[in-house]
Amino acid sequence: LLCGGVGGAKLARGFELLGDSVEMPVVVNVGDDFEHLGLHISPDIDTVLYTLSGQANKKQGWGLEGESFRALERLNTLGGEAWFQLGDLDLATHLLRTQMLRSGRSHSEITEYLRDRLEIRSKVVPATDQKLRTELETDRGTLDFQHYFVKEQCSPRVSGIRYVGAESSMIPAALATMPANSFDAVVLAPSNPFLSLAPILVIPGMIDRLRELSAKVIAVSPLVGGKALKGPAAKLMRELGFGATTGSWAELLRTTYPNLVTHWVLDTSDQNEAEMLRESGAAVITDGIVMRDDSAKARLAEALIARGAVDA
Amino acid sequence: LLCGGVGGAKLARGFELLGDSVEMPVVVNVGDDFEHLGLHISPDIDTVLYTLSGQANKKQGWGLEGESFRALERLNTLGGEAWFQLGDLDLATHLLRTQMLRSGRSHSEITEYLRDRLEIRSKVVPATDQKLRTELETDRGTLDFQHYFVKEQCSPRVSGIRYVGAESSMIPAALATMPANSFDAVVLAPSNPFLSLAPILVIPGMIDRLRELSAKVIAVSPLVGGKALKGPAAKLMRELGFGATTGSWAELLRTTYPNLVTHWVLDTSDQNEAEMLRESGAAVITDGIVMRDDSAKARLAEALIARGAVDA
Repeated sequence: LLCGGVGGAKLARGFELLGDSVEMPVVVNVGDDFEHLGLHISPDIDTVLYTLSGQANKKQGWGLEGESFRALERLNTLGGEAWFQLGDLDLATHLLRTQMLRSGRSHSEITEYLRDRLEIRSKVVPATDQKLRTELETDRGTLDFQHYFVKEQCSPRVSGIRYVGAESSMIPAALATMPANSFDAVVLAPSNPFLSLAPILVIPGMIDRLRELSAKVIAVSPLVGGKALKGPAAKLMRELGFGATTGSWAELLRTTYPNLVTHWVLDTSDQNEAEMLRESGAAVITDGIVMRDDSAKARLAEALIARGAVDA
Repeated sequence: LLCGGVGGAKLARGFELLGDSVEMPVVVNVGDDFEHLGLHISPDIDTVLYTLSGQANKKQGWGLEGESFRALERLNTLGGEAWFQLGDLDLATHLLRTQMLRSGRSHSEITEYLRDRLEIRSKVVPATDQKLRTELETDRGTLDFQHYFVKEQCSPRVSGIRYVGAESSMIPAALATMPANSFDAVVLAPSNPFLSLAPILVIPGMIDRLRELSAKVIAVSPLVGGKALKGPAAKLMRELGFGATTGSWAELLRTTYPNLVTHWVLDTSDQNEAEMLRESGAAVITDGIVMRDDSAKARLAEALIARGAVDA
């Protein structure tokens, strides 16, 4: 499973809930990583770890259940930078990760350590151990991801996206050493195409590796009815000159990585969209892809396995 | 006022409470500073800042009023280093200081910034802007201060103390630029002689500067009845081969820095000790030096001014 934060993490949780019968390593976007207050923060990895361990804050949509913000409030009182919501519990992760990175351990090793401590079954693998940062060209200048996403609340108009450092990044050892054809399918989660999936796919060697790992690549649409369930996917796709449709994302993937995606999964409410995709020659499955709770997550994961198998 | 943490901070608070009629800059030990979890922590400066601003945790004896430890508890769950009690509110100070140090600001500038934010009247000046670290030779090997003090709870037997970096440290600009004879007195707070005051006094140029600033140097005894009110002062003095008495501390100061201390202040309960000191030729004042609450702090500060003036 390739994913970013919230939406992708939900599907990852679905596979996690299926138990030992399913082995689904999760490859997570690191383009949103940033340094803040001297801490290395990996929002997508943390969202995946928190979601997989069942500790994600359901109401808030990010961070940890039962979180508090006392350190941040105090920092604000002291005139420090308080625009990024750092919870007291969440801080522990950042402090530990930063300390481990400084002591020379890799992002992969630290993620594996945290996965183990949080008793998560699925492997969680950062898309790369090198520095790769998503940067946005906007009408308010070049912004790094968190400044665009959190500080500016996605309001600037985006004219371009760069994945800085991508060309010198590598796929991580955990991914490189998996035996060829060891998976029934690679799944592209319903994550933001440009902010979560593209910064994984652009890593040199990634596409070849995915093709080697499985003959089947299933992409789950990040949109339902032309809208993102969360986040700026639809707005961003329009601003970049693509339609806010699964079809335009499918088209972009097809032209950039020919014959990569073998199956598309769209929401049952998107029958027209599904029909158009089929006409372009794709294998399309429709199913309920909105994951409101744990049972919906597990159900979609199960459906992907079952439906993927039928089409195989 | 030269001081370390708790005891010295209380006397500093006493002077702060006297209002604008008294100007008493506080020069604070930095020998206890350390790097922990990637954060620069300055325990004595923070204790002074928290105490001066009236935010010190009275019950706990250190840290902030109304503190919580959620980040630390979580860090412990994740297997991180949790032996140093880092409160959620306290973390804000460490995050901000660390970030400001990394951006190139000096310890003095950051302390001045925090003093201003916390609306403290008295200047607070780190003893030096250079790195100076108290290290202890013990029966469990060489320990840095916090490992000795917090992790090992002062239980190792100490055979020697080093102030690493002292020889290349300098007095800070704020102290260097004060006009000569601008103060009625320099006060050595009732802080630990070896762990709080000595690492200030050893800084090259410090003694000469103190002599220039005032003709009168008043030392307040860190012991009452041969015991420290808090901390390992008495134990440490014995282990280092000095008696746990004000007299032995006075003797050490006299031999190391001849004619520096002009007045000693001992607790009224220590009349014998006071008499012996007088016999050695010192000017000795006795008064209640135990500061249980704010009014006792202000009272001692006032008494030092009044009694110091009488003896002048």
